[in-house]
Amino acid sequence: MIKVVAKNKIKEDKLETVLGLYQELVQETRKEEGCILYELFQDIDDSTVLTMIEEWEDKASLDRHMKTEHFMRIVPMVGEHVTKRALNIYHKVY
Amino acid sequence: MIKVVAKNKIKEDKLETVLGLYQELVQETRKEEGCILYELFQDIDDSTVLTMIEEWEDKASLDRHMKTEHFMRIVPMVGEHVTKRALNIYHKVY
Repeated sequence: MIKVVAKNKIKEDKLETVLGLYQELVQETRKEEGCILYELFQDIDDSTVLTMIEEWEDKASLDRHMKTEHFMRIVPMVGEHVTKRALNIYHKVY
Repeated sequence: MIKVVAKNKIKEDKLETVLGLYQELVQETRKEEGCILYELFQDIDDSTVLTMIEEWEDKASLDRHMKTEHFMRIVPMVGEHVTKRALNIYHKVY
């Protein structure tokens, strides 16, 4: 199992736009083979921090995800409104 | 539901020590009321990045957690070996 945490700080005036883009991304990604969890979270103290927390069966599933039409179309559109990002890929310890 | 992502960069020579401390913290915390998930992850590209991903029933459960004996004892011990940290508390959007 592979865990992904993708944290993005969004330009405040683009937050609604990005939430709409992420909604489609979540809907489409959950249909993918190998996708266990794909959930979007918003920081309770700073609403411009949006974080996708993902769980994939294996690295191959994640690699496939990044080549899907919806990923390659939507993620760059989100990226235009991101001012700061952090992406980590994890394996589980405990 | 409240999601917590606590990312810490650990001094390389203290990694085994910290993994031992986190093992006890995970074991004790999972017994707490209101704890849905409490899992430790390690970055696949940088083994010194350890991230706890947590799920709590509500903010009150998280607040109680931070007052437990095991939290107040173990977290400062881990903190001595941390060089960089990021803590975010989230609510779920999608």
